[in-house]
Amino acid sequence: MHPSSWLCLNRSVRFGDTDPAGVIHFYQLFRWSHEAWEESLEKYGILSSDVFPKAINYKDNPPIALPIIHCEADYRSPIKTGDNLDIELIPKRINPGSFQVVFEFKKKESFVAKALLRHLSIKAETNQRCILPEGIDRWLEASSIDGVIASID
Amino acid sequence: MHPSSWLCLNRSVRFGDTDPAGVIHFYQLFRWSHEAWEESLEKYGILSSDVFPKAINYKDNPPIALPIIHCEADYRSPIKTGDNLDIELIPKRINPGSFQVVFEFKKKESFVAKALLRHLSIKAETNQRCILPEGIDRWLEASSIDGVIASID
Amino acid sequence: MHPSSWLCLNRSVRFGDTDPAGVIHFYQLFRWSHEAWEESLEKYGILSSDVFPKAINYKDNPPIALPIIHCEADYRSPIKTGDNLDIELIPKRINPGSFQVVFEFKKKESFVAKALLRHLSIKAETNQRCILPEGIDRWLEASSIDGVIASID
Amino acid sequence: MHPSSWLCLNRSVRFGDTDPAGVIHFYQLFRWSHEAWEESLEKYGILSSDVFPKAINYKDNPPIALPIIHCEADYRSPIKTGDNLDIELIPKRINPGSFQVVFEFKKKESFVAKALLRHLSIKAETNQRCILPEGIDRWLEASSIDGVIASID
Repeated sequence: MHPSSWLCLNRSVRFGDTDPAGVIHFYQLFRWSHEAWEESLEKYGILSSDVFPKAINYKDNPPIALPIIHCEADYRSPIKTGDNLDIELIPKRINPGSFQVVFEFKKKESFVAKALLRHLSIKAETNQRCILPEGIDRWLEASSIDGVIASID
Repeated sequence: MHPSSWLCLNRSVRFGDTDPAGVIHFYQLFRWSHEAWEESLEKYGILSSDVFPKAINYKDNPPIALPIIHCEADYRSPIKTGDNLDIELIPKRINPGSFQVVFEFKKKESFVAKALLRHLSIKAETNQRCILPEGIDRWLEASSIDGVIASID
Repeated sequence: MHPSSWLCLNRSVRFGDTDPAGVIHFYQLFRWSHEAWEESLEKYGILSSDVFPKAINYKDNPPIALPIIHCEADYRSPIKTGDNLDIELIPKRINPGSFQVVFEFKKKESFVAKALLRHLSIKAETNQRCILPEGIDRWLEASSIDGVIASID
Repeated sequence: MHPSSWLCLNRSVRFGDTDPAGVIHFYQLFRWSHEAWEESLEKYGILSSDVFPKAINYKDNPPIALPIIHCEADYRSPIKTGDNLDIELIPKRINPGSFQVVFEFKKKESFVAKALLRHLSIKAETNQRCILPEGIDRWLEASSIDGVIASID
């Protein structure tokens, strides 16, 4: 699979995402970003139950959790109900136990907003730092512009 | 277009839709229902700016508003992160100034939940009751099992 | 404690609760209702960790879960940013294994909206029906207009 | 009024704010921050209708909008259902047409998370930059540790 198949996503802005100012209510950008990350993992071939606790088909919860320790967003142009947004994901391994994803939101090639989510890898039971889960590592490797592309199929 | 192209939709359950009980947090079903209604109108060919205030490309806000006056939901089986849900919309005109949509959520043919949204048609400026907007009427007509199918293309 | 101390609550409507129609986005009423129920239990004296999984100070998750199986809402008058709402809770035991709470929302004595949440009691491990947890039973008893009032302090 | 009466707020973490990891779902921190800002303005004495479009008692929408152009958050310790959080607001005027607010979240004196919202002042009709509205300026002045305290009563 070509990385763009899991790093170039799309979504429509819905009425409930916006507020009386007629634009998205600011923190919705973070919800869209997290959902884009989940969709990216899914398209790449990672099972929800390998990453998230209490997902479908889980026998035991994943031993590793990936809490977000930092996030930020910049808003360049108004985003309105009915807008169709292209979302480009730019994942990056920071070190063996943490990674970040930048999400660039565009409307017809024009940049409208950007978000960044930074995750840490911890043992779910003890909250101790640990290395990234194997599936996330493969997704990061495959998503890297410079790295060797390993795919799941 | 065949009605199923705008009345049979689909969505994936995301991590942020669920709570520590490991299932969707109950009111998310209503958010999914409203978004499914918006997607249905969009697929049928109604512009967001004809229905919703402050949508893209609006010159003036629509003269008619469609507030929800009643809604309800029933939850049959657990819905979890990673679930893929088929959503069947069953719209129905109640009278010239009000309509409802039932949303049936299924997981692989198995019924998991149902929601109903009931809307009233009012003049946006005065809040007075009025007849349904023309586009909504056409969508209701086209979506009716018994009615004549009129499509926009 | 007098029942009104945990059955008569209050909240302010915030900007992000509303949409471009200038009124609350409909499903927010359900979020407010669930939060009012949690606040009621807290004021009555029930610990979060006795009712909800993964709450503060939990050693083990509660053995009984209380999924919502049905909910509904009626919207009478517009609710806007800055509105201050009085919320009256009317809990009722339906049978030994289920209960409901009606939430009446008023603005200066004037009824604006109503919601109903209906819960079932199930064993968290097996999903089997069971009787209501003891704390919930005491809260229902104490909240009943006709019943004997038992309080926790 | 003493600044702490509008700069030191408090909230309880509710079940629907959290996710299956048993902690707040990250972007809820931004919702709490915006609501704390609204509560701060309200306690200081600014009317909702002077700041937010379509608020109660509005005759005309405010001529000036205050879109968020940047926001960020850092998460230090887990925040769980039932936690009671103290929120300290630290507002700061950046220049005559923009300001930011830092929100420090603490659990019994212990720092758990922090958020920052940065706003720009624009003419609502034209989207052109302009100076901050008078009410916001007074709130910023009164909230400043070094500045002259002007209060509304």
